[in-house]
Amino acid sequence: MRDKKDLKVVGTSLPRVDGVQKVRGRAVYAPDFELPRMLFAKVLWSDRAHAKIVRLDASKALKAPGVAAVVSAVDAPQNRYGVYLKDQLIFASGKVRHIGEPVAAVAAESEQAAEEALKLIEVEYDDLPTVFDPFEAQNDSAPIIHPDLETYEATYSKVAYDNVALYTHLSVGDTEKGFTEADHIFEDEYKTQAMYQGYVEPRACVVGFDQRDKLTVWTSNQQIAECHAEMAAALDIPMTEVRVVGTALGGGFGGKLKTHVEPIAALLAKKSGRPVKIVLTREEDMIASRARPPYTIRLKTGVTKDGRITARETELVADCGGYSDHVIGTMGLAVTFAQGAYKIPNCDVKGYVIYTNNPNYSCMRGYGAHQIDFANESQMDMIASRMGWDPVEFRRKNLIEDGDVLVSTQPITEVTISQTMDEALRRSEWNKKGKRKKERKENVYYGIGIGNTIINMGLLSSSAMIKFNGDGTASILTSVMDLGTGNHTALIQIAAEELGMLAEQINIAEIDSDTSPYDLGQIASRTIFDAGNAVRLAAKNAREKLYESAAELLQVPEDDLDSEGGIIFSRSDRSKEIPIAGVNGYRLWVKGGPVVGSAGWLGKPGFAEIPGEGYPQPPSKTFIFGTHIAEVEVDIETGRVTVLKVTAVHDVGQAVNPLGVQGQIEGGVVQGVGYALMEELQVKDGVIQNPDFLNYRMPTTLDIPEIDPVILEIPSEYGPFGAKGLGEPVMMGVVPAIANAIENATGVRVTEVPITAERYLQAMKKKE
Amino acid sequence: MRDKKDLKVVGTSLPRVDGVQKVRGRAVYAPDFELPRMLFAKVLWSDRAHAKIVRLDASKALKAPGVAAVVSAVDAPQNRYGVYLKDQLIFASGKVRHIGEPVAAVAAESEQAAEEALKLIEVEYDDLPTVFDPFEAQNDSAPIIHPDLETYEATYSKVAYDNVALYTHLSVGDTEKGFTEADHIFEDEYKTQAMYQGYVEPRACVVGFDQRDKLTVWTSNQQIAECHAEMAAALDIPMTEVRVVGTALGGGFGGKLKTHVEPIAALLAKKSGRPVKIVLTREEDMIASRARPPYTIRLKTGVTKDGRITARETELVADCGGYSDHVIGTMGLAVTFAQGAYKIPNCDVKGYVIYTNNPNYSCMRGYGAHQIDFANESQMDMIASRMGWDPVEFRRKNLIEDGDVLVSTQPITEVTISQTMDEALRRSEWNKKGKRKKERKENVYYGIGIGNTIINMGLLSSSAMIKFNGDGTASILTSVMDLGTGNHTALIQIAAEELGMLAEQINIAEIDSDTSPYDLGQIASRTIFDAGNAVRLAAKNAREKLYESAAELLQVPEDDLDSEGGIIFSRSDRSKEIPIAGVNGYRLWVKGGPVVGSAGWLGKPGFAEIPGEGYPQPPSKTFIFGTHIAEVEVDIETGRVTVLKVTAVHDVGQAVNPLGVQGQIEGGVVQGVGYALMEELQVKDGVIQNPDFLNYRMPTTLDIPEIDPVILEIPSEYGPFGAKGLGEPVMMGVVPAIANAIENATGVRVTEVPITAERYLQAMKKKE
Repeated sequence: MRDKKDLKVVGTSLPRVDGVQKVRGRAVYAPDFELPRMLFAKVLWSDRAHAKIVRLDASKALKAPGVAAVVSAVDAPQNRYGVYLKDQLIFASGKVRHIGEPVAAVAAESEQAAEEALKLIEVEYDDLPTVFDPFEAQNDSAPIIHPDLETYEATYSKVAYDNVALYTHLSVGDTEKGFTEADHIFEDEYKTQAMYQGYVEPRACVVGFDQRDKLTVWTSNQQIAECHAEMAAALDIPMTEVRVVGTALGGGFGGKLKTHVEPIAALLAKKSGRPVKIVLTREEDMIASRARPPYTIRLKTGVTKDGRITARETELVADCGGYSDHVIGTMGLAVTFAQGAYKIPNCDVKGYVIYTNNPNYSCMRGYGAHQIDFANESQMDMIASRMGWDPVEFRRKNLIEDGDVLVSTQPITEVTISQTMDEALRRSEWNKKGKRKKERKENVYYGIGIGNTIINMGLLSSSAMIKFNGDGTASILTSVMDLGTGNHTALIQIAAEELGMLAEQINIAEIDSDTSPYDLGQIASRTIFDAGNAVRLAAKNAREKLYESAAELLQVPEDDLDSEGGIIFSRSDRSKEIPIAGVNGYRLWVKGGPVVGSAGWLGKPGFAEIPGEGYPQPPSKTFIFGTHIAEVEVDIETGRVTVLKVTAVHDVGQAVNPLGVQGQIEGGVVQGVGYALMEELQVKDGVIQNPDFLNYRMPTTLDIPEIDPVILEIPSEYGPFGAKGLGEPVMMGVVPAIANAIENATGVRVTEVPITAERYLQAMKKKE
Repeated sequence: MRDKKDLKVVGTSLPRVDGVQKVRGRAVYAPDFELPRMLFAKVLWSDRAHAKIVRLDASKALKAPGVAAVVSAVDAPQNRYGVYLKDQLIFASGKVRHIGEPVAAVAAESEQAAEEALKLIEVEYDDLPTVFDPFEAQNDSAPIIHPDLETYEATYSKVAYDNVALYTHLSVGDTEKGFTEADHIFEDEYKTQAMYQGYVEPRACVVGFDQRDKLTVWTSNQQIAECHAEMAAALDIPMTEVRVVGTALGGGFGGKLKTHVEPIAALLAKKSGRPVKIVLTREEDMIASRARPPYTIRLKTGVTKDGRITARETELVADCGGYSDHVIGTMGLAVTFAQGAYKIPNCDVKGYVIYTNNPNYSCMRGYGAHQIDFANESQMDMIASRMGWDPVEFRRKNLIEDGDVLVSTQPITEVTISQTMDEALRRSEWNKKGKRKKERKENVYYGIGIGNTIINMGLLSSSAMIKFNGDGTASILTSVMDLGTGNHTALIQIAAEELGMLAEQINIAEIDSDTSPYDLGQIASRTIFDAGNAVRLAAKNAREKLYESAAELLQVPEDDLDSEGGIIFSRSDRSKEIPIAGVNGYRLWVKGGPVVGSAGWLGKPGFAEIPGEGYPQPPSKTFIFGTHIAEVEVDIETGRVTVLKVTAVHDVGQAVNPLGVQGQIEGGVVQGVGYALMEELQVKDGVIQNPDFLNYRMPTTLDIPEIDPVILEIPSEYGPFGAKGLGEPVMMGVVPAIANAIENATGVRVTEVPITAERYLQAMKKKE
């Protein structure tokens, strides 16, 4: 690894490569994408939570003006697919399991014509008993949502009985013994809400045919390679028969994974022979969306009188709604981090994912780590408070360290939680502020709270290719989209650093499943680390070829070569130099052949060896740590909480583009404030009550606190140029920090997010 | 290399991968390509052969209805570019040098509006003295077409003075000595015509902006990577700022190289901010085309009385018209093959490419090898006839052999000319037919003639990448288009063979300069050999990764593994097997990382070391050989020549897709018949007299002889699975074979193609 002081491009704040076209309004997002002769489609969503489809008659719709095609279950393959469990179909077949499930769709010459035709589709339902509570759903009397589930081909075994989509059980140490050693045992329950990802660009896609008549999907999706795989699975065709191309992506936050309406548009395109566009309205996007699943988390923690945690039992129950989707995976992550950022030698965790007739949940930024972090970090403060310990001191006594093992038995490495915590305390002037007078004015109290975060870094596979142009510029091929986080700029910086080029000499090719090599996608905070490593390795592969020829041309040994700004030079004799364009020309026309590089990357093997039942998180190469400190004012009369300031410290190993990291932290903190205080999909009897941005309240500029984004750089051995990455933790620690600050301010503990004024006042009343 | 008997996919006749969409009419050729909000453009072509542009006023055109943009030289960068010499600009600047040179262009809402607006562009010319004959153009009194040429930056030095765009001189042995050793010296002159490539799809492109607002060209072009480079050069931007995507390609035959109207469309797109389409009419395509240049070839050959050629002097003069374009390269190839397929120890060749005010010529299938082959093979028969030798015996006495050197001093290898000649003689029943009675009926005479061909195989660079999908299918990335020859199918077969997969498990990604690694293009008969080698090496690179993991999973050594039909198995224990999809899944999720492969290929180094002046052909890895035997009937009253049968024997090393090879041979022979007898761009005072398919006569079904396409397979050490390839020779040997058959039939020798009835009758008259 290069020394930090030697880095030329990595570590420099560069403007985003996609900045100009986005500012000029020339970037084409999926809803803007157009093709000639394109049809517009509308989807008929189930308005029943659980019902048999007795009759579906689209004959009138088909005759409506401008209608080109109507599709429903009869037009769709009946092979089930899904992210973890194969429980999904393109259209509800036989019965619907939640409101917002696709039942049929129409493609017509205009959106209006499609909408009118939709009304002419006759669906006769026969309602079935419903269940909306994940605990009730486990009762013997509950209706079974997927009675035929055992016959579905499950990707992961040992799951899926009755309404239990997943049962996961992991254990380290001996909890019984651990609790015996404890002087105090604390049991608490926490609840987190269903949260909508709130991206600006609604789900949209165009499915048509490329110049070779190949079925092609243009979509804004966080996982082009996985969307490609799922398109093939849903349509029951080989992956070579469908192509997925990424458009500009207007935010996702875990909401645009795999496929959503893409297979529906594909069925309509195949039936009509024409391109078909679907753009969801905001209401549709919220109703038919796959939001962050609500979790109920019970913690039982044993502590010695000198503040050492000896044991923990954790039980997590997540509601996945009608289909399991990513909720399975969120549980895998949640159980894996049952200990949080703390050393807990005896730990036992059980996770349940339960089918109900609620909307189909999936996942959001933080996956399941966010939910468990809220519970863990809240309980740390609650225990400290009950035992009269300082919350920081109690944490410090139990901080996880290198060599400790997770409940998945994976050893943990590169732990920097004490550094992020120390820096957060210093930057926020915790000691001084903690001594402030709580009451600021009548009924308004000041509080300060802390939240630590731990999450895995490095998740599964990535690969990249790089090819050089004749003028010495280069193209990177990767499947990684740019959600809006600036990671394309950062990947270019990584390649430029490895090759000794300028960032402006490198571009990233359009993301296209026919050409972009596999990458799991822009999820799990993994892009800089995993795709960054793959891009770096591919660049290294290409660089070796360039150096081989440069050594020959300059008559120096290869190991004497270095490069910078697109010039390869001899370190021992700086007068010997040649531009990369020259080396490339030599290889193209004289010797060696064109420069191409490629590399695959899979950080950490050993997934299959994890003991326990169900689906834990795969092993990760390293871990990332952060600490948030929130300062709040609580109006105890109205229950209104105002976040004054958030100090957010993250160890990113190495900031590839510091400006981008800072932007990530700031955006994440804002989203965390929404999670902590405001945002909630209110679901009653399976119906989302607030499917619009007026009633689903997200933070606006008026709600944004002062943010102090602090970047720590403790280089990772495993990341590209020491980088670890970031993405999810930036919105995590802030949530328990706010809850802890509220208790610090007023002594009132709220264990359910969002901490609305109503919940605060109820908790205050309960305490009194 | 695998034994021929072990080949599973290579060597099998498969239907074309692009067959279905082409038959169904769903393939999108460039003229069919559409984008929303697309403008249509028309180009104003110079109607003067040589003139100063005194005034160009587009103000009225700009105000015409529906006009969005007008561009001319003032809108274009003034940096000259070009294939070999940098003598071109997007638009004529200051003066025009030939009829059909672009002067201005209009983009409008419709083609009609653009055409109307074109008439409103006012151009005032001041005519300059003209020269149309390449010999006159070398006189001191001739007007200089490019007076400022020495100040242009030439890619190749030692060229370009006065009207001489290129002077090349190569020599082996000692010709003076060689002629002294000869008993007879023969001097003859040959002329070949300007020939239009006659593809069905006219030149067309759309230039717009992709979803990232990147300038993107959709074009049907034989050289996507070179088109990319030239777009950047013409527009004076880095290659990362422009993208070139290939549409379906409706024939090219050397007529769709680098750029043509693409930079014009780009200027209009940039100016209007909208996509712009240009589709040439057939007349425009012919007038503004870049046809095969006319050559005059003088041969002086010394022969001993026992039939041994001792020396040859060759002088070639090619007319390139107003700009040098590919004519430089055709001369490089022509001089390199001055000896033809014969052993000539003392050989001296001079080649001149001359600027005139004729239309801008370029190149066509066969490049310059075709012209020299016609001269060489005609003279072989003429010498034999004059000396009373049998033409076959005379050839056999002088056939080139392994280890002989070309006039470029390159040693020649893998010579199979005696095998193709023997097979052609056998298949055509030469001996029996040669003894036939000549006079078939009154005035109609039968004749049989032979033509050998030699051409280099393997030209410069190629590279390829391959990536695997989760289901075990794979995508090949290459810059090589499919002209319609079926080479995409063949490249898939090569990859499938190397990987042990089925052809249907592999596809080729859309050709796109952002993602497709460099390849010189579908020219020079090189696709199977060069791109085939690159694809094979990239597949090998991927296969090694698959085998590494398969060895681990099957617990056998890697060198015990083989694969077939997508299954990897142990050769020693056939019960141990695993599908590639399984290995791929293991690498994706458990260990190793995604499978990607890449490779660069440059067959033969040493370009820089070729002695001599000018621009000879780069060294080639191997050579290809073929023999054509033509049988004709000549009506000596009308001069009409009817080709009865052509026996065409080609050694292709290994036929990758025999059906495709057969199709290539048949198509080539037909085009050769056109070359020999019918096709000619008639240019008078710089004006093409027959710019349409009625007056430019190409063979129709009525003109097609019986064809016996014979595939010889003598494996090459250097080609993929022994394949050498094919493409140009299939239309070469047939031309002199027809000329030789005519003399054989009637004793009349015509030394200028096409051998029209008029030329035949003139020659007959001259002889009498």
